[in-house]
Amino acid sequence: MSLTFVGLGLWDEKDLTIRGLEKARKADRVYLELYTSKTFINIERLEELVCKRIEILERHHLEEESLKLVEESREKDVVLLVPGDPFVATTHSSILVDAKKRGVEVEIVHNASILSAIIGVTGLHAYRFGKTATISFPYRNRISRYPADVIKQNLSVNAHTLLLLDLNPRPMKIEEAVEILGKIDRSLLNLFSVGVARVGGDSKIFCDRLVSLKEKDFGDPPHTIVVLAKTLHITEYEFLKEFAYAPEDLKDIVE
Amino acid sequence: MSLTFVGLGLWDEKDLTIRGLEKARKADRVYLELYTSKTFINIERLEELVCKRIEILERHHLEEESLKLVEESREKDVVLLVPGDPFVATTHSSILVDAKKRGVEVEIVHNASILSAIIGVTGLHAYRFGKTATISFPYRNRISRYPADVIKQNLSVNAHTLLLLDLNPRPMKIEEAVEILGKIDRSLLNLFSVGVARVGGDSKIFCDRLVSLKEKDFGDPPHTIVVLAKTLHITEYEFLKEFAYAPEDLKDIVE
Repeated sequence: MSLTFVGLGLWDEKDLTIRGLEKARKADRVYLELYTSKTFINIERLEELVCKRIEILERHHLEEESLKLVEESREKDVVLLVPGDPFVATTHSSILVDAKKRGVEVEIVHNASILSAIIGVTGLHAYRFGKTATISFPYRNRISRYPADVIKQNLSVNAHTLLLLDLNPRPMKIEEAVEILGKIDRSLLNLFSVGVARVGGDSKIFCDRLVSLKEKDFGDPPHTIVVLAKTLHITEYEFLKEFAYAPEDLKDIVE
Repeated sequence: MSLTFVGLGLWDEKDLTIRGLEKARKADRVYLELYTSKTFINIERLEELVCKRIEILERHHLEEESLKLVEESREKDVVLLVPGDPFVATTHSSILVDAKKRGVEVEIVHNASILSAIIGVTGLHAYRFGKTATISFPYRNRISRYPADVIKQNLSVNAHTLLLLDLNPRPMKIEEAVEILGKIDRSLLNLFSVGVARVGGDSKIFCDRLVSLKEKDFGDPPHTIVVLAKTLHITEYEFLKEFAYAPEDLKDIVE
């Protein structure tokens, strides 16, 4: 009797770990949550892998019926499959707290997440990232200033900013994110940035000033942006020059 | 002919992903790098999983002979197994740049890393982490002020600080890290912090003022510390109260 959160990693069903696979195979019930991340999982192939039927959780299930899930875990071994690394989305943390409060044994099987994968894909140093922010679609014609505030906070301590793009009602593209940032503060558009599409899959990466990222062909989402710190380490620069078509004048910010 | 970096995740050989396993099975040569992370991998069991002999890379191999590894990848399919998510350690990035410069096809198979796993284990929100720093053992009796500077920078923007502890010549313990921080700046010792041991394995977690973490029994390394931001979100507080034996007065910093 337990509730195990199993991370599915960044791309498709092959990103499941051996540990995660074993937990799902042994479980009495396996659920899959798909609305907090964009994923390319083929559910039939995933069912073949774990040798059982998988029940898809809709958003309203997870938020309203999480208590039912927790109660079920008191009598059965339940596995909840979650794209990426579990708990990067706060929804899952609250289920975890609920479960523990009710005396349910809880386990976590970690997996890859955009938070660390972005480092390998951009060549930027792990230690140089500041706070992360999400760019959301305007809500009732209002745009949140929050991402711009985070970029400025990070620039004040010479840190890079990872910007995650909204997934609902559909995955936001880099060009849309740049539009939104420009509306908040035009001066942001001049900042050197890295745009990345499909991390963990057939990823594509370009480095340029934010405004120029709009013109690049990134292909399908999911898309992500890193706004660079005021200065770059020489190896960060070399990586971006080699892999991300960085413009000549990026060299000017190498420290 | 390619060079594939395959992340091994946080704990043991069962954290390998299906994709990573397939790449290693198909490879002509498989190397394993073990000095940038602490891992509990059983090499014999890992060799059984990938159905071939695995060659261990020593530190001097990777730094001095990385060119040889790259050259080998021009004629063979080479897999380099790396604990955690590849490239969180910058050593691997420079091999990647070398390989690309020489026209070698490079692939990355991502996996879990402490950078995202710490979120699930501590219940702290992903968006509230600032820069990461490493606490190193004193070198020729000199202690680096860097981690204290990062903590202060992060506090100035109300962000949490993830502190990774030195692994060489042996994994540093939380009590040693607290000693070092106290020597840099005694005022740090009063900050609320979370100590975590063995993330991804049989993890143990305590929340208290930094100075009091010295008294807790965390057991074996690897150990990690998160110094908390000036304020906590209510759900962050609830999580730490439920799972980390947080003291009563932690409630005072809930916003």
